[in-house]
Amino acid sequence: MTVTTPQGFRSAGIAVGLKSTGKPDLALVVNDGPEPASAVVFTSNRAQANPILWSRKVAENGAARAVILNSGGANCFTGDFGYATTRLTAEAVARELGDADAERILVCSTGLIGTGDQTFRDRIVDNIPTLVSALAADDETAPAAILTTDSVEKTATHRGDGWSIGAMAKGAGMLAPGLATMLVVITTDARLSDEALDVALRRATGASFDRLDSDGCMSTNDQVTLLASGASGVAPDANEFAVALTGVCDRLAAQLQADAEGASHDIDIEVRGAASVADAVEVGRSVARNNLFKAAIFGNDPNWGRVLAAIGTTEAALDPYQVDVSFNGVRLCHAGAPDRPVDECDLTPRRTRVEIDLFVGEHAATIRTNDLTHDYVHENSAYSS
Amino acid sequence: MTVTTPQGFRSAGIAVGLKSTGKPDLALVVNDGPEPASAVVFTSNRAQANPILWSRKVAENGAARAVILNSGGANCFTGDFGYATTRLTAEAVARELGDADAERILVCSTGLIGTGDQTFRDRIVDNIPTLVSALAADDETAPAAILTTDSVEKTATHRGDGWSIGAMAKGAGMLAPGLATMLVVITTDARLSDEALDVALRRATGASFDRLDSDGCMSTNDQVTLLASGASGVAPDANEFAVALTGVCDRLAAQLQADAEGASHDIDIEVRGAASVADAVEVGRSVARNNLFKAAIFGNDPNWGRVLAAIGTTEAALDPYQVDVSFNGVRLCHAGAPDRPVDECDLTPRRTRVEIDLFVGEHAATIRTNDLTHDYVHENSAYSS
Repeated sequence: MTVTTPQGFRSAGIAVGLKSTGKPDLALVVNDGPEPASAVVFTSNRAQANPILWSRKVAENGAARAVILNSGGANCFTGDFGYATTRLTAEAVARELGDADAERILVCSTGLIGTGDQTFRDRIVDNIPTLVSALAADDETAPAAILTTDSVEKTATHRGDGWSIGAMAKGAGMLAPGLATMLVVITTDARLSDEALDVALRRATGASFDRLDSDGCMSTNDQVTLLASGASGVAPDANEFAVALTGVCDRLAAQLQADAEGASHDIDIEVRGAASVADAVEVGRSVARNNLFKAAIFGNDPNWGRVLAAIGTTEAALDPYQVDVSFNGVRLCHAGAPDRPVDECDLTPRRTRVEIDLFVGEHAATIRTNDLTHDYVHENSAYSS
Repeated sequence: MTVTTPQGFRSAGIAVGLKSTGKPDLALVVNDGPEPASAVVFTSNRAQANPILWSRKVAENGAARAVILNSGGANCFTGDFGYATTRLTAEAVARELGDADAERILVCSTGLIGTGDQTFRDRIVDNIPTLVSALAADDETAPAAILTTDSVEKTATHRGDGWSIGAMAKGAGMLAPGLATMLVVITTDARLSDEALDVALRRATGASFDRLDSDGCMSTNDQVTLLASGASGVAPDANEFAVALTGVCDRLAAQLQADAEGASHDIDIEVRGAASVADAVEVGRSVARNNLFKAAIFGNDPNWGRVLAAIGTTEAALDPYQVDVSFNGVRLCHAGAPDRPVDECDLTPRRTRVEIDLFVGEHAATIRTNDLTHDYVHENSAYSS
């Protein structure tokens, strides 16, 4: 159990034919309260899919009652017809639940942009009675139904003192900040207000998904939904809850990084000695997005020159000639000049750590990314998503 | 003849052992006047190689007398020793020319970052007498000596009314704006002041090299040098000269694009209907840097959804739901929804045209880029540059 680990939730996942493989592709998570609250964070891409346009309005209406998610089609750039599909989906869920308002039903979609025709609509809407009848408090089927090119289910849970958090995620490509391009549903039975959830969720996503930058590409369909039922009767300390939520999101981010399409290295870029956290993030991201650096890591080449060339393109407070760069614990560049021999460094393990010390301040941040591989090119040229 | 097409110039290119292949790797272009003037544009990367640090000072001293260029080593992040190598190189050129000041000698280097040891220094400095003695007004050898992973020499000339322009360039990767990562030497026998040259050169590079973005990566060693001898005795109209210079730079940019490492498509992204040229450039660049879009083109997949997803990440004035996107003349997306069938579009030719109409203004710009291929990944993982 993941999203039903906390009390007050039911979920389900079924196959309705959106995926050509016949695998599960429609999931529903319902918040049964008794004190429902919610918070949602959306993609910062201005090109937004119909479910994002719909869910933004739902998020303004107070606590969401449920979230329905489909894989096998993004319903993005599908015109007025596509938006109507999203509305009809929410209405069908509300009708089947019996006691719900369509304006309180969040909708998420993931898959190929431009997919959202009559067949897509029918397969979702016609199967909602089946989906609702499959809802269970001990469900194990929802996480698989939101996957696209993912090779594994991504889940995380946290046990607090009398309360808990459960979460599921999908994401295997297009992982870039302003959310890391994914769908995430997080549930908790803690008693917390919409406002408290919103503060905690923004803090958590800012320090986790927003620092995952697999390929610099930002999706049109990103959504992270946090639902609270209040069913535990426990109101945890706000900071304790935020720390736990950040931990859950960070574990999901690590799973997304580890499953990035075609990657052969998971690279953690740790920037230290920055004048601000924002500077540390900017420096780390400039390296994470540098195709030459990423291709070098694929070839097990600890090319520190490409790190410095990437750093030099930022606005961050730094002097490129005062920077240290280490790969997997071996300092290859000291004060902007060669240090240890490159052959002391072994980049064959999948896990790769690049440490960058700017020596101008006390702030730090870690950006998670992946290498640029033949398989990345292949998967993203052969598979349209 | 390229850089010696205009009167008043001599050049030479020789092999001194910097390249393991034994190919030419040291070039010199000398301005013999009688009215020398010059302008230089440098990389906007804050991580700058020693020859850039040196040449920035030279550029402040008035008309440059000569420019010496080596391939086979970037002399970047090589410490004080590397800077001294650059200074010794300029001093040796000045000494051998006999009538020159080292502070008027521009230096350019290209190759692997971190390369610039005693052997590198000796091979350059010790061979400068040979290089100077090889100088000729009908030289054909300089363009080859500045190449790195380039497969062909890049040259362009322009014949004005009694005056001319000659140019040579190198660049086959790390092509991103704020100069497109390359070395360029342009000569003219027109009579023009340093100031007139500077205005013309910035206008020309802004509309050519700055709109070439092969892989989003910016180099530490970029330099575009324009030398005028005044030997024709003709002072062309400033606008006429700037237009001619822009044409020369644009033809070089097209050659750089066509020789980009590992590319299988040359993609021109034409953005129209923008509120400003800056908006058009930002939109075009966001698409040019999107790895998912670039991988799709490699697979001959006209994935217009990825174009819109990239556009949505910009700050430009636009509504993603009012945008048209065409691939090779076939409009696949109209007003943010699917238009013509994707299979009407043939992306098998190397030359690829993506047209994006924003319908918010009258401005336009074209960004040149390339696709993301297996060969790009291979060449940039196997070859350290």
